[in-house]
Amino acid sequence: MAHVFFPPLSRVAICGGTHGNEMSGVYMLRELKKRHIEQDGPVSLITVLSNPRAVESCRRYIDKDLNRCFTSQMLSGPLTDDTPYELKRAHELNAQLGPKGSQEAVDLLCDIHNTTSNMGLCLILYSTDWIPLHILKHIQSKMTSTPVRAIFIDLPASEGYSLESVGKHGFTLEVGPQPNGVLRADIYNLVKEAVELTFEFVQKFNAGHTFEGGEVEAYTMEDSVDYPRDPTTGEITASVHSELQDRDFKLLKPGDPIFKRFSGETVTYKGEELYPFFINEYAAPPHLRSV
Amino acid sequence: MAHVFFPPLSRVAICGGTHGNEMSGVYMLRELKKRHIEQDGPVSLITVLSNPRAVESCRRYIDKDLNRCFTSQMLSGPLTDDTPYELKRAHELNAQLGPKGSQEAVDLLCDIHNTTSNMGLCLILYSTDWIPLHILKHIQSKMTSTPVRAIFIDLPASEGYSLESVGKHGFTLEVGPQPNGVLRADIYNLVKEAVELTFEFVQKFNAGHTFEGGEVEAYTMEDSVDYPRDPTTGEITASVHSELQDRDFKLLKPGDPIFKRFSGETVTYKGEELYPFFINEYAAPPHLRSV
Repeated sequence: MAHVFFPPLSRVAICGGTHGNEMSGVYMLRELKKRHIEQDGPVSLITVLSNPRAVESCRRYIDKDLNRCFTSQMLSGPLTDDTPYELKRAHELNAQLGPKGSQEAVDLLCDIHNTTSNMGLCLILYSTDWIPLHILKHIQSKMTSTPVRAIFIDLPASEGYSLESVGKHGFTLEVGPQPNGVLRADIYNLVKEAVELTFEFVQKFNAGHTFEGGEVEAYTMEDSVDYPRDPTTGEITASVHSELQDRDFKLLKPGDPIFKRFSGETVTYKGEELYPFFINEYAAPPHLRSV
Repeated sequence: MAHVFFPPLSRVAICGGTHGNEMSGVYMLRELKKRHIEQDGPVSLITVLSNPRAVESCRRYIDKDLNRCFTSQMLSGPLTDDTPYELKRAHELNAQLGPKGSQEAVDLLCDIHNTTSNMGLCLILYSTDWIPLHILKHIQSKMTSTPVRAIFIDLPASEGYSLESVGKHGFTLEVGPQPNGVLRADIYNLVKEAVELTFEFVQKFNAGHTFEGGEVEAYTMEDSVDYPRDPTTGEITASVHSELQDRDFKLLKPGDPIFKRFSGETVTYKGEELYPFFINEYAAPPHLRSV
């Protein structure tokens, strides 16, 4: 296998509060700032509260989802007085941490998120980006307290819509279950451990350590399943079945229950075998994705 | 023991969405409306979405907490253009379901809430109100799927701040854990069962059934404990300890861990033996209350 060389990761950004009611990132940033880690060693660490207005209101967002605002097209469009707050903020973040796709962009961007789904710790990453793939392997090799999984987004960087696509390399750290607006110690400790392992990787990488190639298991999105709805009013007519709830990344087979109608009947799954995730996530309908 | 007679409960109100991001009540109301239960039998059932603007925004409230707006003083004050939305709405609800303390008020008011805390099913009630005490006993005698507990608010009705104080009799149905904005089937089913048992009680009561007296175990509020904070910035400096998280209604003894500082140290409990509840609730600091 050929060797690939990358320059050091000298500028690393840790972001949180991209969704203002996901508390692990908000508190992780405060702790990093208190410890003045910015001044430790040769790496410049930048800590960024991505959506301060949404954090202040403890809401996911004010006008639109900030984590869908970072495509090259959205970042190059004009801003007017009517531009939604989050799109303006995306332009600011792109100026601070990018510009996306340029030599000035931060070398590594880690954006911390929470989910209400029972997903443990996941790295969400663009599949052609080798640095976060090695960070994934490093975290997997060291972390024993929870399964560490990878979710691939199969898009070219220019179409990448999420904040981490602004860095030269980047990933989302997604951890759950945690209710919105709440900080749980168990979930916070997972985030802290993963961030510390990311710093450990950066130090080893910058010190010239060689990392072996290999394979990683990852999930990609196959389909997104909405709730059953009333055809007239559009209102949801069923909840996620209790036999599916909290069973993220467990095999789902045709015939398994997925919804329970409020009227009492069970709705079963009709598709191919899959591993569902983001089940009953606050922000999104349940997703069914395959390994 | 002397017998006490009450007139029939002819007008019953089921309310939900008093907090706009607590979904069990919102969906329970939709189902009750669909089934046109209003027309069943001699009881007139009124279903009320208490805070429609907060439900639409999926937020706890717009201007202020609606469930703190129902004291006699707040309901008798003047309304101006600057009056917060929720206080205006409280006046509307008082006109529709009250007026509080009058003969025109609904006979029974049940208001459905959710908590992110691991509290199971609780009835929150004013301790001198005999009808919800008997409803509590009825639900406790029939429900086997979860513990059914009572929390007493020791206030005279005129100082009662919550929506149920508008009815001649009333209680809050509090169920958790459920993240805000999310509907879980297991939690929804507990709410549905408790509402159906409430209807069952009302039917038996109106049919002239005699209910035995007796004792109920209930929790009352002793103290409310805030998170440790930075004295300068006011920022939270600790999370609820993982040995306390999710242990609502379990005995807490002096010396038990209650918080874990982000810097690593454990904070232990210094007070008398108590049963904590609303632990790490989204809306409020943890509460320590005694049976």
